Amino acid sequence: MEVIRSLKNERIKNWCRLHEKKYREKEQKFLIENEHLLQEALQANQLETLILMENTKTDLSFDGNRVYVSEEVMKKLKMNQSMPVCMGVVHMKKNEAELKDKILLCDDIQDPGNLGTMIRSAYCFGFDTVIVSNKSVDIYNEKVIRSTQGALFHLNVIRGNLEDFIKKIKKENIPVYATAFQDAKGLETMQPTHQVALIFGNEGAGVSEKLLQLADEKVFIEMSRFDSLNVAMATTICTYWFRKR
Amino acid sequence: MEVIRSLKNERIKNWCRLHEKKYREKEQKFLIENEHLLQEALQANQLETLILMENTKTDLSFDGNRVYVSEEVMKKLKMNQSMPVCMGVVHMKKNEAELKDKILLCDDIQDPGNLGTMIRSAYCFGFDTVIVSNKSVDIYNEKVIRSTQGALFHLNVIRGNLEDFIKKIKKENIPVYATAFQDAKGLETMQPTHQVALIFGNEGAGVSEKLLQLADEKVFIEMSRFDSLNVAMATTICTYWFRKR
Repeated sequence: MEVIRSLKNERIKNWCRLHEKKYREKEQKFLIENEHLLQEALQANQLETLILMENTKTDLSFDGNRVYVSEEVMKKLKMNQSMPVCMGVVHMKKNEAELKDKILLCDDIQDPGNLGTMIRSAYCFGFDTVIVSNKSVDIYNEKVIRSTQGALFHLNVIRGNLEDFIKKIKKENIPVYATAFQDAKGLETMQPTHQVALIFGNEGAGVSEKLLQLADEKVFIEMSRFDSLNVAMATTICTYWFRKR
Repeated sequence: MEVIRSLKNERIKNWCRLHEKKYREKEQKFLIENEHLLQEALQANQLETLILMENTKTDLSFDGNRVYVSEEVMKKLKMNQSMPVCMGVVHMKKNEAELKDKILLCDDIQDPGNLGTMIRSAYCFGFDTVIVSNKSVDIYNEKVIRSTQGALFHLNVIRGNLEDFIKKIKKENIPVYATAFQDAKGLETMQPTHQVALIFGNEGAGVSEKLLQLADEKVFIEMSRFDSLNVAMATTICTYWFRKR
């Protein structure tokens, strides 16, 4: 068993660079931690290298690259406070521009936990495609991936200009709904349809005016007491309502 | 304007002790940060002392104790990474044992963000009472309070033995539903009733066997793809379904 112990090792240095968004984009790779996420990446055929702490074992049946590292090296690679026993280098999927029946659109979501939960809800409720605006937090941010609980590996997640996508979606006659407070219909009055695109907006500003104007309908979640639900909670309720049945 | 600059000041030392659960319980007080939460505490008549950084102002119209502190003292008092301009010492409400129409029961919830979100959902959807099991995370944990976004101040939140409470609830003929995967009915098949008690369980183990046996009905959230929703997401969907109309 060969163990990499040097922080100056070229591969280690390259992998550490993946902590930064610009290198992730350049290399089209990202890092993940812990067995559950590794399992999901493996299933999705995206795991490139399995990084294991020396003297540890894993139940993952992975035939590809396996690299053992010292504790010191793992400490350098890790992304959270706690020490992982395994990590993975994962290559990004080439996501398809093709749109399917159920589409979630994320307009400038800033909080990684929110975006991750939104992707997880989309997955649970049978959405096929998630489109994330260019100004949203990076999809491959460690906290986003962790909050998706692996759902990221099983969905078509695209980054792009939402206006352009909405125009395309409308051409395919898929109804587009945006959450809003004004001139909006209650969620329960909406008939769940087989095809749907839902737009959710930034934590502070909500869905931007431009996108609201493109939507076929504005929708609000009926509340008993006025309080703003956070965007992840709102997405969970709406994706449940419009889920694939 | 008198400013406390000494970390050895008795009041400062006492307030710092409120970072620990056992002192919060002994003193029946807790700390909060930032204007939004202070505003909510003030409205709920629970704000005891307003702590301000020297040379700052606040729009809060609070006639009670106002204390100015130096940056060094604020740094010692604060609970998050970022530096607050204001904090508050808040006294706990004497919560009533009386049960009302809509009750949320939290069975050994460990994650403070989850418990906070559950309380926030309960508030949004018109629940009156939240009962938190003794083994759950502390209600007055800073992250719990932050995730409730202040909803904690407007609900009757009780800590206690869930079994005892469920027996009391059943005596009042309020239907009790628990989330479960086995022998459960789909949420959409449940008629939203005026009175309801909902039990949600621990992140790993779910609702405990004892409590499941006490429930009138077990309920699952219909999903398109199998994945476990986290307990906060599940609570948000179910409280929406059973909301006060």
